[in-house]
Amino acid sequence: MNLWKDYSRERLLRLREDCRAEYLEMKARGLALDMSRGKPSPDILDLSNGLLGALASYRAEDGTDTRNYGIPTGLSESRRLFSELLGIPADQIIVGNNASLELMYDFYAALYLFGTQGHAPWSKCAGVKFLCPSPGYDRHFAISAAFGTEMIPVPMTENGPDMDAVEALVQSDDSIKGIWCVPLYSNPQGVVYSDETVRRLAEMKTRAEDFRIFWDNAYGLHHVFEEHKIADILKLAAAAGNADRVYYFFSTSKVTFPGGGIGLAAASPANIAEQQKRISIRTIGSDKLNQLRFVQYFKTADAVRRHMRAIGDLLRPRFEIVLDTLDRELGGTGLATWIRPKGGYFVGIDTQEGCAKAVVALAKEAGTTLTSAGATFPHGKDPKDTNIRIAPTYPAESELRDAMRLFCLCVKCVSIDKFLANRTA
Amino acid sequence: MNLWKDYSRERLLRLREDCRAEYLEMKARGLALDMSRGKPSPDILDLSNGLLGALASYRAEDGTDTRNYGIPTGLSESRRLFSELLGIPADQIIVGNNASLELMYDFYAALYLFGTQGHAPWSKCAGVKFLCPSPGYDRHFAISAAFGTEMIPVPMTENGPDMDAVEALVQSDDSIKGIWCVPLYSNPQGVVYSDETVRRLAEMKTRAEDFRIFWDNAYGLHHVFEEHKIADILKLAAAAGNADRVYYFFSTSKVTFPGGGIGLAAASPANIAEQQKRISIRTIGSDKLNQLRFVQYFKTADAVRRHMRAIGDLLRPRFEIVLDTLDRELGGTGLATWIRPKGGYFVGIDTQEGCAKAVVALAKEAGTTLTSAGATFPHGKDPKDTNIRIAPTYPAESELRDAMRLFCLCVKCVSIDKFLANRTA
Repeated sequence: MNLWKDYSRERLLRLREDCRAEYLEMKARGLALDMSRGKPSPDILDLSNGLLGALASYRAEDGTDTRNYGIPTGLSESRRLFSELLGIPADQIIVGNNASLELMYDFYAALYLFGTQGHAPWSKCAGVKFLCPSPGYDRHFAISAAFGTEMIPVPMTENGPDMDAVEALVQSDDSIKGIWCVPLYSNPQGVVYSDETVRRLAEMKTRAEDFRIFWDNAYGLHHVFEEHKIADILKLAAAAGNADRVYYFFSTSKVTFPGGGIGLAAASPANIAEQQKRISIRTIGSDKLNQLRFVQYFKTADAVRRHMRAIGDLLRPRFEIVLDTLDRELGGTGLATWIRPKGGYFVGIDTQEGCAKAVVALAKEAGTTLTSAGATFPHGKDPKDTNIRIAPTYPAESELRDAMRLFCLCVKCVSIDKFLANRTA
Repeated sequence: MNLWKDYSRERLLRLREDCRAEYLEMKARGLALDMSRGKPSPDILDLSNGLLGALASYRAEDGTDTRNYGIPTGLSESRRLFSELLGIPADQIIVGNNASLELMYDFYAALYLFGTQGHAPWSKCAGVKFLCPSPGYDRHFAISAAFGTEMIPVPMTENGPDMDAVEALVQSDDSIKGIWCVPLYSNPQGVVYSDETVRRLAEMKTRAEDFRIFWDNAYGLHHVFEEHKIADILKLAAAAGNADRVYYFFSTSKVTFPGGGIGLAAASPANIAEQQKRISIRTIGSDKLNQLRFVQYFKTADAVRRHMRAIGDLLRPRFEIVLDTLDRELGGTGLATWIRPKGGYFVGIDTQEGCAKAVVALAKEAGTTLTSAGATFPHGKDPKDTNIRIAPTYPAESELRDAMRLFCLCVKCVSIDKFLANRTA
């Protein structure tokens, strides 16, 4: 190993000079790149352009005129197609409008407003808490924050949330009401929850009887390298007598178009029945034409899977650029660590302590916007200021090469400054 | 006048025999009609079939790729088109997904969860009450019921809610937090709120500082006979210093397709800013492709207005059948009263006291489903059991003729039985 922190002061000063010169050179090129959010690139979106075409018919398979009111739980053929894709019984799926984030928000709000399966609503409970495996997805944490839920960070491992920590917490405190999970290709680290993690989540005893797992399978079909699978949490929970514990979410936002996708929720029959009643107060029916559009265009689960492989082919080179650049520029330096993502949309990187904010600021100065440092932790506060999320899906490959070179330079500059400051101090 | 209640017992007995015979004859024909909900008929939906065609481009006018994430308040060109149609500044409009009912539910839930403009959330207030002009729209009342709000019925007049009653209530009780209104072609009576009603709603003093008017302008463009206009409540409220009082809702569900429409909310700049923050927690953006589809298809406000006139041409004969049959069969009998609807989707009829449920049941027996009696009142309880909502928009004209003849027969049968029973008693 050749750790930069062990370098002599002189060597660090020389490196600083080189890095700064290179940084200024890149800055002078006036880059204008945005890697802050997990947006699909135009070439990925183009793969779904067939969806912009005309609807062949407005009739559902059973003859229903989908132009009209009704069917608040979604078209049968659409529920069936997702059933096949996700391996969940069709009658345990509710297909809604654009965006599963909306469904997560609504399910969360319903727990707060009305409670579930006869349990008291959170609004009547003191100090409700929620587990937030971190680093995690900022928009999940934003929902918890909006409802004033106390967020408890739980460390992430290469197998998912640290289950010893999770079990100790849920078994000791009945105000811990749930946990946010992105089980396949987690945001931001691309971690795949191990079978044991999923089993323990499904089976663990919880002090709160109404404990809920918000299972956001956002990247359920988003393989990049190999095709990984996660264990079936709905089945495992049911087998363990915890059928109602899991709220499962998925959307086509990153299958077809974020600006015109379809969100869905899946859960136990009792939970679906409960939601069905609630949804029927809020709507007479979601956008069935859009559901039909998806089914008419893809027709079969296999066609969707082929389509996802084509998306994977466009994502893979981008991930390779990120990982190759990290390996080449930072490998063995000890300046940063990262888990190699197994798929999904992001790469999570940990800098030296206290460096992440400065790295993001320095990159911004040179025209490259990264996700705000800290965003991957509850309240946007990364206690060690180390985590940075890289979202490589939007830029073109050439831009991404520049952006990653710049990013690594920023890590070097900030780290060197820190090492030098520590020695002076 | 030739009131049936003054008829001799003998004459009533003879009429009963005639009516029963005619009823049995109609029943034998095995009708299967549904007039329970305000659904557009297939011929009305056909007028929008152009919307099923291909999108010309996925680019918004400013070049935005609408396939991707973003713009949670809706595409500018869509806000501008609705601005012109409804006479509301575009920046006071948020365009969302399918169904304005969802937006009403969400605005209502936000008042309960978070409060508005610094006022306490309803969840922290004891005994929140809401005014429900009745007869009214059952789905509004269902939202209030779901949140446990106490509903206070207010009588409807030919000019809108009885404003003396409304003012007396809101000036005496600070737990009255709002009112449901369908100001143009009210559901179910087709009443147009007079300018004075709108002005008084906008200007009245309310004990609750956070009093909110849920202004559901569902039929804002749905002229059937003449084109009526209502006063601009957002402007009037702002001029009276009550800018934040009004939440305005509209959707294209009955302009194009209920199964693929666009909902919108409009309000004061301060309310829009507040909602914008809340919406951004719940979604990264609504279905922008659907918004673009609407704009690309219609292009101008004038084109939408022409389209609504074509819909009016299909609605008018249906309304005429209803009103002509009522006039012919029940006019001058004293068996029922009704306000001639000025437009919209419904006709509201009042039978003799204690007859509505029996009429609906009798019609059902002969194969015609009407909206449940009582549905137009809070908790589905019509205190006098008189109000019945007729929804003439779905059936074909010939079916509607049969259904209305059957309906009038049912009113006659039930009324005669009641008169005879009263005399025996």
